Amino acid sequence: MSDLVLPDPMPPFGSYVPSTRAGDLLFTAGHFAVEDGVAVTGKLGVDLDVERGYEVARLAALSLLATVQDALGDLDRVVQVVRVYGVVNAAPDFTGHTRVIDGASDVLERVLGERGRHARLAVGVASLPADLALEVEAVLHVR
Amino acid sequence: MSDLVLPDPMPPFGSYVPSTRAGDLLFTAGHFAVEDGVAVTGKLGVDLDVERGYEVARLAALSLLATVQDALGDLDRVVQVVRVYGVVNAAPDFTGHTRVIDGASDVLERVLGERGRHARLAVGVASLPADLALEVEAVLHVR
Amino acid sequence: MSDLVLPDPMPPFGSYVPSTRAGDLLFTAGHFAVEDGVAVTGKLGVDLDVERGYEVARLAALSLLATVQDALGDLDRVVQVVRVYGVVNAAPDFTGHTRVIDGASDVLERVLGERGRHARLAVGVASLPADLALEVEAVLHVR
Repeated sequence: MSDLVLPDPMPPFGSYVPSTRAGDLLFTAGHFAVEDGVAVTGKLGVDLDVERGYEVARLAALSLLATVQDALGDLDRVVQVVRVYGVVNAAPDFTGHTRVIDGASDVLERVLGERGRHARLAVGVASLPADLALEVEAVLHVR
Repeated sequence: MSDLVLPDPMPPFGSYVPSTRAGDLLFTAGHFAVEDGVAVTGKLGVDLDVERGYEVARLAALSLLATVQDALGDLDRVVQVVRVYGVVNAAPDFTGHTRVIDGASDVLERVLGERGRHARLAVGVASLPADLALEVEAVLHVR
Repeated sequence: MSDLVLPDPMPPFGSYVPSTRAGDLLFTAGHFAVEDGVAVTGKLGVDLDVERGYEVARLAALSLLATVQDALGDLDRVVQVVRVYGVVNAAPDFTGHTRVIDGASDVLERVLGERGRHARLAVGVASLPADLALEVEAVLHVR
């Protein structure tokens, strides 16, 4: 994973925290992509195409992994990523959500191997906070 | 449940798996309806009406139950369906989500009895992968 | 919390229940705001502005807390609110979801203190059941 550099953990934003833990489960907040210090915005199918979306989802998942590492101290404590929810800011006629959110799923598996494989739901919403292009949220089994 | 025939479990699709387990919880991926080998597509309030949506949600929930049976070996190992998330590909002025997703909820209760009763959220999204009409996702307490 | 009065718990609605429990986790259904006995409806960015949305989210979270109290008998049994999902019925160009759902998050923290702090995802969907303005769903660590 030499080219997979985790960004700094997402700072607290709004009236919530980046992750919480309940027993062996870690719940993350929604994470988004930041490039050159700026959140990636725009609507899939209008402002961004599928391949750009794949890359944006990849960056959002790296931000999520940074939060997980910050919460656990070490990604070795991830037993399994159990659920990923990928929310795409998408036009009503957009159909490429699977390929877009694969950008997040692929990086989770690349970093964590079999432990990164997860159940998933991907949807296209009408709008996201601050016009974010997408958000990725996860539940992880941890120790 | 003589007329409730479970389909074959959904094959792996995209970079994810149909279900994952963390302790006593089983998380499923989003499941959709397949008829005659074809995924049911279209937007509620435009291409499909509420009663058709109810039937589509019923089929999606049967696919979800097939995944659960495949993961557990036996539906008797379901302690309780704890959460159902029903995501409808819907027009901005659609309002019939409750009745549509009742198609999924009703089949869960019909197959599992009291163990099939769950907390639920139903929403209408702008678009879904491959123009799917709806997706149903669940968390189950299992043993 | 003298001015924070919990409403009556939401009655069963559709084919689901207000909350379920699996071990130490409590899952709630989606909760919405009711004023003078009427559910608050309309689209953010069209029918309601951000400040009105903040108040509506506050009321939805109070309804959710009423369900939690009803399920547990006492809010002291909440260890931590672990996940909040805020779903806003929003126009495609709406961007104020964070401020709106802060209305829910702020009331959770006001009532529960540090135990009310949570991971969160806020999105804007195309439509909601019965044209509800928003829904708030949560997972709580309880004892």
